[in-house]
Amino acid sequence: MGDGPHDRDGLRVTPAFNRVEVPLPVRDMIARLMMEYAHAIDNDELERWPQFFTEKCLYQIIPRPEYDQGRPIGLWFCDNRGMLEDRVSSVREVSVFEPHVYRHVIGPTEILGSHDAAYQTQTSYIVVRTMHDGEMSLFSAGRYIDEIVIESGAARFRKRVVVPDSWRFDTLVVIPL
Amino acid sequence: MGDGPHDRDGLRVTPAFNRVEVPLPVRDMIARLMMEYAHAIDNDELERWPQFFTEKCLYQIIPRPEYDQGRPIGLWFCDNRGMLEDRVSSVREVSVFEPHVYRHVIGPTEILGSHDAAYQTQTSYIVVRTMHDGEMSLFSAGRYIDEIVIESGAARFRKRVVVPDSWRFDTLVVIPL
Amino acid sequence: MGDGPHDRDGLRVTPAFNRVEVPLPVRDMIARLMMEYAHAIDNDELERWPQFFTEKCLYQIIPRPEYDQGRPIGLWFCDNRGMLEDRVSSVREVSVFEPHVYRHVIGPTEILGSHDAAYQTQTSYIVVRTMHDGEMSLFSAGRYIDEIVIESGAARFRKRVVVPDSWRFDTLVVIPL
Repeated sequence: MGDGPHDRDGLRVTPAFNRVEVPLPVRDMIARLMMEYAHAIDNDELERWPQFFTEKCLYQIIPRPEYDQGRPIGLWFCDNRGMLEDRVSSVREVSVFEPHVYRHVIGPTEILGSHDAAYQTQTSYIVVRTMHDGEMSLFSAGRYIDEIVIESGAARFRKRVVVPDSWRFDTLVVIPL
Repeated sequence: MGDGPHDRDGLRVTPAFNRVEVPLPVRDMIARLMMEYAHAIDNDELERWPQFFTEKCLYQIIPRPEYDQGRPIGLWFCDNRGMLEDRVSSVREVSVFEPHVYRHVIGPTEILGSHDAAYQTQTSYIVVRTMHDGEMSLFSAGRYIDEIVIESGAARFRKRVVVPDSWRFDTLVVIPL
Repeated sequence: MGDGPHDRDGLRVTPAFNRVEVPLPVRDMIARLMMEYAHAIDNDELERWPQFFTEKCLYQIIPRPEYDQGRPIGLWFCDNRGMLEDRVSSVREVSVFEPHVYRHVIGPTEILGSHDAAYQTQTSYIVVRTMHDGEMSLFSAGRYIDEIVIESGAARFRKRVVVPDSWRFDTLVVIPL
């Protein structure tokens, strides 16, 4: 360490900085979607959750090792808003009372590109779970890999793939991530 | 799972997206307030803490179960800036040296509405505590529910209710959250 | 608590709110730098890491107790981009496979001032580490204290000092923070 400056004049590094120009109102809509999604889950307003998606959509949870190896084997698979609504109904039926709560903290959203009228983005998250007795634990850390469209003046997920860094869950994922 | 698309044409879901239009400079002032508040506490600049509030104000910590049931029973209660300053003095007097430090990571702020010249907002947070011997732990996860006014060109809290998801604290909350 | 309003009319508190006016495009570039830096590390694109710095630069990890006492004794010290590239090469050589992954969640960036054509900023972070067997833990919480310049239309670090709140690491810091 501290072994002085290197001479690397020959090396021209072209930074891969994000060059997608996205208008400010669209970025605002995307930021709002990310934030409202997390708040709806964390504040026990699960009924709002399906509304963040388009009618035909894809919601999946794929652990990172599977995702990185291109194996779309996951814990959840929903391909339309009706399935998302069914999921919410199931949570409400099986739970006499709220079993535990999540708290998402999400990082800023990186817009990676646009494809087929959708914005492709990634957003890091950490979720802390609090059990009924007050015990807190790190539940999941990972990222969202999304395709977002603007529909009737609001941003919605056409595709949301949740990629947790860890593939061990000490309980079933009951509530969506 | 994967049971194909549902036909839910009859169902028109109206998303409850945030419709409050807040000018960009105001949003900036609010974002700055949130950020400076967290940095002041985390970087041991507690003396700045009362300055983030209006002269008459409300600062409370109410655990989520109490908050959800409408019982404003909390750990802290301060209703003016003087009380906040007294709190800071107490921390400084009882602590020979810094007992532990916090690190807040806050999510984006959702502006829910405006009422009586104040903006109502919510912001998720996770706080990691580091003890003097270097041990780290999840200290609190929850949300801030705030009323914010613009006063002399800066945003200030008229009301800040801290709602931790967990109501167990293994030590007293000495430093404000 | 609840001991009534104090009379502190004599006391005029001048809030130390951030008065640095930074144009929106510059703030955007800074936000993008912060975000891309974290994503590059977390998503195993370490080769991008040196590109976030200027050719002559400073990258250090200094635990908070050392930092606060003005002792720049740290874990890492790199003062040019070539050293950063060497670090990346070392990580790639020693690791047969990815030993563990990080997930940064960063808070918003506070621009503290500008000095010598650079913006001085601070940004809080929490890093969760996931081991190969899926075990997650809080790895580091702290802040970045940066000097950022605008170079060819992009923001880059002229100086990045990582100041973890905790100075205990149960393993070597192999991957940059």
